[in-house]
Amino acid sequence: MTSFASDNYSGVHPAVLEAVALANEGRAPAYGRDPWTARLQDVVRRQFGEQAEAFPVFNGTGANVVALQAMTTRWASVVCTSTAHIHVDECGAPEKVAGVKLLTIPTFDGKLTPELIDLEARGMDDVHRAQPQVVSITQTTELGTAYTVEEIRAICDHAHSLGLRVHLDGARLSNAAATLGASLREMTTDAGVDVVSLGGTKNGLMLGEAVVVLNPEAAPHVDYVRKSSTQLASKMRFVSAQLEVLFGTDLWLLNATHANAMAQRLAAGLEGILDVVRPVQANAVFVRLPADVAERLRRSYEFYDWDESVGEVRWMTAWDTTPEQVDAFVADVRTALLDPDRVTA
Amino acid sequence: MTSFASDNYSGVHPAVLEAVALANEGRAPAYGRDPWTARLQDVVRRQFGEQAEAFPVFNGTGANVVALQAMTTRWASVVCTSTAHIHVDECGAPEKVAGVKLLTIPTFDGKLTPELIDLEARGMDDVHRAQPQVVSITQTTELGTAYTVEEIRAICDHAHSLGLRVHLDGARLSNAAATLGASLREMTTDAGVDVVSLGGTKNGLMLGEAVVVLNPEAAPHVDYVRKSSTQLASKMRFVSAQLEVLFGTDLWLLNATHANAMAQRLAAGLEGILDVVRPVQANAVFVRLPADVAERLRRSYEFYDWDESVGEVRWMTAWDTTPEQVDAFVADVRTALLDPDRVTA
Amino acid sequence: MTSFASDNYSGVHPAVLEAVALANEGRAPAYGRDPWTARLQDVVRRQFGEQAEAFPVFNGTGANVVALQAMTTRWASVVCTSTAHIHVDECGAPEKVAGVKLLTIPTFDGKLTPELIDLEARGMDDVHRAQPQVVSITQTTELGTAYTVEEIRAICDHAHSLGLRVHLDGARLSNAAATLGASLREMTTDAGVDVVSLGGTKNGLMLGEAVVVLNPEAAPHVDYVRKSSTQLASKMRFVSAQLEVLFGTDLWLLNATHANAMAQRLAAGLEGILDVVRPVQANAVFVRLPADVAERLRRSYEFYDWDESVGEVRWMTAWDTTPEQVDAFVADVRTALLDPDRVTA
Amino acid sequence: MTSFASDNYSGVHPAVLEAVALANEGRAPAYGRDPWTARLQDVVRRQFGEQAEAFPVFNGTGANVVALQAMTTRWASVVCTSTAHIHVDECGAPEKVAGVKLLTIPTFDGKLTPELIDLEARGMDDVHRAQPQVVSITQTTELGTAYTVEEIRAICDHAHSLGLRVHLDGARLSNAAATLGASLREMTTDAGVDVVSLGGTKNGLMLGEAVVVLNPEAAPHVDYVRKSSTQLASKMRFVSAQLEVLFGTDLWLLNATHANAMAQRLAAGLEGILDVVRPVQANAVFVRLPADVAERLRRSYEFYDWDESVGEVRWMTAWDTTPEQVDAFVADVRTALLDPDRVTA
Repeated sequence: MTSFASDNYSGVHPAVLEAVALANEGRAPAYGRDPWTARLQDVVRRQFGEQAEAFPVFNGTGANVVALQAMTTRWASVVCTSTAHIHVDECGAPEKVAGVKLLTIPTFDGKLTPELIDLEARGMDDVHRAQPQVVSITQTTELGTAYTVEEIRAICDHAHSLGLRVHLDGARLSNAAATLGASLREMTTDAGVDVVSLGGTKNGLMLGEAVVVLNPEAAPHVDYVRKSSTQLASKMRFVSAQLEVLFGTDLWLLNATHANAMAQRLAAGLEGILDVVRPVQANAVFVRLPADVAERLRRSYEFYDWDESVGEVRWMTAWDTTPEQVDAFVADVRTALLDPDRVTA
Repeated sequence: MTSFASDNYSGVHPAVLEAVALANEGRAPAYGRDPWTARLQDVVRRQFGEQAEAFPVFNGTGANVVALQAMTTRWASVVCTSTAHIHVDECGAPEKVAGVKLLTIPTFDGKLTPELIDLEARGMDDVHRAQPQVVSITQTTELGTAYTVEEIRAICDHAHSLGLRVHLDGARLSNAAATLGASLREMTTDAGVDVVSLGGTKNGLMLGEAVVVLNPEAAPHVDYVRKSSTQLASKMRFVSAQLEVLFGTDLWLLNATHANAMAQRLAAGLEGILDVVRPVQANAVFVRLPADVAERLRRSYEFYDWDESVGEVRWMTAWDTTPEQVDAFVADVRTALLDPDRVTA
Repeated sequence: MTSFASDNYSGVHPAVLEAVALANEGRAPAYGRDPWTARLQDVVRRQFGEQAEAFPVFNGTGANVVALQAMTTRWASVVCTSTAHIHVDECGAPEKVAGVKLLTIPTFDGKLTPELIDLEARGMDDVHRAQPQVVSITQTTELGTAYTVEEIRAICDHAHSLGLRVHLDGARLSNAAATLGASLREMTTDAGVDVVSLGGTKNGLMLGEAVVVLNPEAAPHVDYVRKSSTQLASKMRFVSAQLEVLFGTDLWLLNATHANAMAQRLAAGLEGILDVVRPVQANAVFVRLPADVAERLRRSYEFYDWDESVGEVRWMTAWDTTPEQVDAFVADVRTALLDPDRVTA
Repeated sequence: MTSFASDNYSGVHPAVLEAVALANEGRAPAYGRDPWTARLQDVVRRQFGEQAEAFPVFNGTGANVVALQAMTTRWASVVCTSTAHIHVDECGAPEKVAGVKLLTIPTFDGKLTPELIDLEARGMDDVHRAQPQVVSITQTTELGTAYTVEEIRAICDHAHSLGLRVHLDGARLSNAAATLGASLREMTTDAGVDVVSLGGTKNGLMLGEAVVVLNPEAAPHVDYVRKSSTQLASKMRFVSAQLEVLFGTDLWLLNATHANAMAQRLAAGLEGILDVVRPVQANAVFVRLPADVAERLRRSYEFYDWDESVGEVRWMTAWDTTPEQVDAFVADVRTALLDPDRVTA
């Protein structure tokens, strides 16, 4: 069964698997004092600038929860969109483990703006209000859109002027680089982002993300937070080796560029058949689908409902999606829609 | 440099690496709805009995913190030894993430007994006392000793009679099976253990442990706890495949038997040279070493101080320790001790 | 300076102070095993029905945080309005102490409806979603409005049909009874509410609220939660004696009726002078005020900004507000507005 | 029934009740911006030195939990005795609300020493160890003993030399002043203590404690911690007024001196009848009592078991214990012991 469900349904890129195998050379110090993790620091400095430091963790929720804790006090709130992964997809881990309150803002396109931030970044010095300390944005967003570098810079400038730090959930940061033609550094360090949750799993890794601190003052004790939040890997080299090959070569960009291209191909193929309801700026395509058509397609394809109330579904491509898979899917969508036997409302 | 520091300095067993590579076949549903995780359930049922269910997680601290939360209410305490990993090696994660109080009991050999449990398993129905709800034991213990099956059964019977459940931190449960000649099931399910943190990383995996629930009533909602505690892997198949090959074949026992044998070989080699200060029942050897000898050995070997106040160090073997490494080490210890130039106190 | 800032600026009703003094007779068992707390149970059963049980606590945030914990698991979310006290006025205590996620819904009048609840009470059985377990409503609301008994019943029926419990933040429940002509029981137990945070401080007490459990299955362990959340009073009799006199006599209703009447008097006095922008159904009056008028009034009166962006302020009356104070205030508002010297926009 | 159970069974001193009544003059700003709370700051500065600042809270557990949070990061441990109130009597609130790990040390007399502190104040910079950041001592201790000023200073000097701060749980600090003839300041500020939980309830108040910060660098954000931990009183004047009269006059010392004297009278009366098993340095007397005698006495007196395994009970006096009550009790103890009918072992 072909899957357009999520980029985490994909396997591991062969180069990553090879890197893991190569990391398996005898013994190495545990908990990050190994050569692979050391080399990852070089990679991260090259990609994000001299001050950058990477703290490998297991998964995206772990990266976010560690980052937010390291950036906040015990009485903090975090401004984010109402579609943010930290709000809708982490089973309350930020509240439960980090103890932070999320101040959520509805958006049309999954993107915050300085004006939207102002809706919640207020009440400083009011002891009754969980103090806004961080703005968290997602790049690319959960709605398949990408902030421009200028939009990120405007958010960072505004947040900083209010005394807040900026966290960027970069589970799909590579896809943004591919769509914008911007470097990782331009979208983050240079735009003023303080801390990044750098994604790997959805872009070809087996398992591995990193909290990347760009502004050391913004997150001075990630090491203790990572350990006390259960995210410190003992045989860390096997996580670091994956991140090293992904970001130490062009693999991150190749994989993301391919995934994005497959989404564009899908969107183009749907033209005239089905309306794509959100801009396709990364590797997700959102459409509204009649229920019977969705059901029929599900016999051969996996994908997620996005908003059942309006029949919106999400089709997601990945580094390993092939053009043939996309084309066959488009054909099947067309067939399902045009089937003379289908019940029409 | 040869390392006797910890069994998590070791690499990955080739069969495990191969299983990971084999799991990399196309796409598979995320978050545990994949065939490897399904097959792991069969393996776990075979090893632990029909009621057993495995919840793969990333690491040992994660397994313990998830297990303890799933077994307790919000006002719970957990009885354990003062040398328990959950107390001394997890940076307070059980308190921070699970909110539990640990009631710690000093022991000579790292092992609880019914009598020792009684020191803290009291004050039920006293609203001022964090309610004892779980006894947590480690097999093999942090001091390299192993509970007998009868000792575990006595603890479980006693705990249950008091209304407490039993959690077993089995980071090195395989080593116990090897030393006792007991099956995994005999040491756990049959002895009355409710929930096991089943270790893999220290026994040849790259990364992977599992919360294994033996008594479903004791931990009914591990799934939500795992997710909200940041321990749910998206590409879980790559964790499950490791556990599947380890526990679905004899690999777990072969690796542990070898690691234990290497510790015995080391202890035997030290006879007449150095006193081994704790029983060697698993893969750790504890000795007291003059400071200058320790320093000299550290030029060529890595190992941990255990108790600096008395010069006690821990030498740990693993699945990949070779007899040649042990013999060379013994020779070097002998040389270091006998060196006529060394400063003697 | 006369204050229309908040009903917690008021003093203690003389009958309450007398009850406190009368409770000061020699020694009494601590932590709630005293006769006053026992008698409070009778009072609460009389007011709320036979199953009701009261757990006195110190303050409203304490009552809410204890109630929500007692009603939820560790992976819970709570549906509430975006103006709910638990969301905007408790400095994140529900997230921090209880670990719950709040799912907030914007409203025009501070009131949830079954339809609004549906916006967030979804995703059951989705391990990625903090599980909605409680609907929390406030009566009277933070916007000075009151749910009808039927509205509460509709919410409870709907919540229960979805498997959720209903918590009612009743910091001003007495004011609702006064405005609706409904008994405490009709608005809560009979309408299906599971747990109430019963307010006292804002209605004439010195200090004292209670978690009142109406459905014992919904909150079976309030005692341990209260203690472990720092809300167990040692000399509880002095809290219970206050609640006893308030709810054991008609004082709760007299105080609330008076406070409400003063708000009505204020609103009536403003007619033709200033638009009251929200329905006056309790003891709060919301108006929009030109900035210079607000500033001028603040030389003699205390009150809170409600929404600075539109110049909305809140004027709150209480059990001890006098008609003379209201009338003088109305006159001063009129003067300030009509002052020929004021700068007009 | 006469009670020797606890000093929190006592009522409120008349002067305190009068202060509460006097504080009931009209309206006053909530949440601590009232004149009584302002005057309390003067009182506290007079008693503890110019840098001292008081944050009134509701109860002792609240004071401790707020203080420990304000003094620590998210990955902290606190060194205390195994008999500390924070460990045995707060239902895990420090772990649950503050997320701190307690490192407990057994003692003979309830008192830490620099040497004992060293048993646990170690492992700094080890990411696996919850970082020791605070030493918490209780004055007078839970075993009825008092640290000398020199002992406190030695602890503070040692703790500070290790980079730890010192918290003093002063639920019965007044009793220590009475027994030592030392001022509050000599035992705390001058000895190097950083933060005090200042007790009032057990020394004649109705309800009220305060976190008193002596070293502002050690606890810079008590206000947010207090609010987010549910310990901010709205009508704070009624708490502050109690603390003001207690510590703004000699009442604290008179009450404590009396309570201590009653314990001495009790101990003296028991001479030749029963062995007092711990030094009587405050208001508690510990004796071992045959079970049948304990049972017989309990028909007329309330008191707590301390250690049931050896028949140890605690008799506690308070500000309102009368000499006549003590003498009658001594007579009844004697009678119970000498009764020819009693079953002797």
